[in-house]
Amino acid sequence: MSEARGKGFKELIRVDTALQRFFQTLGEPSRPTEQVPTLDALGRILASDVKSSIDIPPFDRAAMDGYAVTAEDTFGSSSTNPIILDIAGRADIGRETKARGGRGKAVTIVTGAPIPPDTDAVAMLEYTRRPKESTVEVMKPVAPGDNVSKKGEDVQKDSTILRKGTLLRPQDIGILAGIGCTTVKVVRPPIVGVLSTGDELIQIGDNLEPGKIHDINRPVALSLIREIGCTPMDLGICRDDRQAITSALKDGLSKTDVLIVSAGTSVGERDIVPSTVNSLGSPGVIVHGVAIRPAVPTGLAVVNGKPIVLLPGFPVAAMVAFDTFVKPLLNRILGSEATPVPRVKARMLRRAPSHGGLRTFVRVKVSREGEEYVAEPLRTSGAGIISSMVKADGLLIIPEEKEGVEAGEVVEITLLRPIK
Amino acid sequence: MSEARGKGFKELIRVDTALQRFFQTLGEPSRPTEQVPTLDALGRILASDVKSSIDIPPFDRAAMDGYAVTAEDTFGSSSTNPIILDIAGRADIGRETKARGGRGKAVTIVTGAPIPPDTDAVAMLEYTRRPKESTVEVMKPVAPGDNVSKKGEDVQKDSTILRKGTLLRPQDIGILAGIGCTTVKVVRPPIVGVLSTGDELIQIGDNLEPGKIHDINRPVALSLIREIGCTPMDLGICRDDRQAITSALKDGLSKTDVLIVSAGTSVGERDIVPSTVNSLGSPGVIVHGVAIRPAVPTGLAVVNGKPIVLLPGFPVAAMVAFDTFVKPLLNRILGSEATPVPRVKARMLRRAPSHGGLRTFVRVKVSREGEEYVAEPLRTSGAGIISSMVKADGLLIIPEEKEGVEAGEVVEITLLRPIK
Repeated sequence: MSEARGKGFKELIRVDTALQRFFQTLGEPSRPTEQVPTLDALGRILASDVKSSIDIPPFDRAAMDGYAVTAEDTFGSSSTNPIILDIAGRADIGRETKARGGRGKAVTIVTGAPIPPDTDAVAMLEYTRRPKESTVEVMKPVAPGDNVSKKGEDVQKDSTILRKGTLLRPQDIGILAGIGCTTVKVVRPPIVGVLSTGDELIQIGDNLEPGKIHDINRPVALSLIREIGCTPMDLGICRDDRQAITSALKDGLSKTDVLIVSAGTSVGERDIVPSTVNSLGSPGVIVHGVAIRPAVPTGLAVVNGKPIVLLPGFPVAAMVAFDTFVKPLLNRILGSEATPVPRVKARMLRRAPSHGGLRTFVRVKVSREGEEYVAEPLRTSGAGIISSMVKADGLLIIPEEKEGVEAGEVVEITLLRPIK
Repeated sequence: MSEARGKGFKELIRVDTALQRFFQTLGEPSRPTEQVPTLDALGRILASDVKSSIDIPPFDRAAMDGYAVTAEDTFGSSSTNPIILDIAGRADIGRETKARGGRGKAVTIVTGAPIPPDTDAVAMLEYTRRPKESTVEVMKPVAPGDNVSKKGEDVQKDSTILRKGTLLRPQDIGILAGIGCTTVKVVRPPIVGVLSTGDELIQIGDNLEPGKIHDINRPVALSLIREIGCTPMDLGICRDDRQAITSALKDGLSKTDVLIVSAGTSVGERDIVPSTVNSLGSPGVIVHGVAIRPAVPTGLAVVNGKPIVLLPGFPVAAMVAFDTFVKPLLNRILGSEATPVPRVKARMLRRAPSHGGLRTFVRVKVSREGEEYVAEPLRTSGAGIISSMVKADGLLIIPEEKEGVEAGEVVEITLLRPIK
């Protein structure tokens, strides 16, 4: 790999290899759990399978308004030749049905009411007539079980309704509520600390003195952590000083489960983060310099069993590194799969260059042309240009094996916002 | 439309017509705003355009480690014929650069440091040699502006960086932090109340007496509201009694911006919600019975300018109605576009039936077969079967104009979970 492409790194490690080495060194994550009320569990990850202790529905119930009957009584009925049945009471919702059916009898019933004893089907109201109070005329045959929701047809008692590792969506909260489950055991999300380094960085709200810039990576990383469902911890800004970084890292490691450090991660004289991390414990930095663009100066480290990710200082590179390394790490710790990401196929309007051997992230504009989507690389593409991530409609990821994408090629784009 | 298909409704209204009528009756939403700290604004909707009061970067700065030079000095240089320049000091990050350049001079510089006066390019460290302390040999020419991030090249002072209506993503928080914006004006999310009706319903945790079932729709709707970024308000369960529903609705209208009522919305004798809503004020129910399956007994109402959505009692129908009517309503109130939804193209393994004229939601299993996705309808498909929404990998929406989807057809599936 040429010097320029390696940015001073002797060797760039493939993304897959880097992740594999990182996860292997970390070993299986211990996954602390906690019990939370079901109604607060949206977006949390189940820590164990959930079985139902009841049937849903808990009893046979009417799926239609009409009359609970013995199906056999209705055979051969039609509108010209209705079967006449005696009304034997009514079944209401929300209470046990006292009325009983039996041959020649019908029980008035509404949707959701328990099916009365000695009936096996519901004749729909639409296919009945009620010439007088005491009888009903059924004009269409029903088979046993017609218009009846059988006990347990939705959820069977003792069946597993949700698996460990499920990210709880609204419908999952619904089924948990349906079985009367008041609390669930979920994964306690890791605390993820974010430390920015750099003598030039100031906090949002601080005075912009000459030579200073506002820290961007920390707010972005804290937001990304929150989006994934982990607990962000702001560890502030640290100046480029070995002692200051050492104590900030030690403090961070003591308070968090995962540590993210931004900037100072390359191979220049001022890039003291990797060697400082190494001084804290073994194995230290296990991956430094990744075949990914932009984000070559990414580092992956493990100190005292805790993962540390070193993000490049340039904001676009930091986001790419977060997406590629931190997201899979956090999903692994949570024990969940990544949620599906919105993607579209789009035809490239211009060539997007990439270096073979490097996984390349290209920020693109996406628009519709008739039925299809078209995409083109943003003209401003520096790794330091945060506005390019704001303006981009999507990301094109060019795999290591490919050298650029040609105009006219149809590619898959990860959408960053809705396309008009 | 046949009686069975209309479920007792005289006429079913198309989804598009229903939404149009609903939004027209409601008029333009008033959109209250609030000021929140930028770092807490993730997922909120911007209430006004944001302009930058500064340039990013705020000064010309080095994009590489190396030497700030006068580009013209380096013309014609090569490794065999380097140009020798005098070291005129160094430029550090985080402070104003005191050193000055000029013809024949070079200033040591690191990435991010302000470009010194009287220099116009940075010669990369990799293409220099430093035989002694006082001079540097440049081995490759640079053009003016090379390896320099120009002041304002990312964000120009006074330019609009984010538009009103933007849902703030991590990169948006990043650019807001970058311009030093401490608070932003965002839309105050509407309070959305959810009331369940039904004599059979009990709360999660209540004793499951004969004839009772746990309320599912309310927990699901409250979760969906939270997911969209609105403020859910639990209005509890109300029994099927006109007086009780009247007072619950009045109470709900006084406390919320949007009211959602579950069940009792069809045309049976026990479906007293629509007429009760009508008794509260005009225009009342403006859409009742929609050409959508499952969710025909959906109602849309406006009372004293406030929107009320009547959801069918069956949980799957309620979710479909929420997705089709409540989601667009809430996005309209928030003034934001719906976020993109993950979709894939899949080949149908079996036929999925639908009724022409009704927009039909089919729950499907999705899997991979080599490079492609394949889908098939779930076998259990009743509108009351909440477990079908839990088991489904995706939703196939068959438009009104189509009668079913054939085996072998390639369709678009909205994913409900990641596919292995």
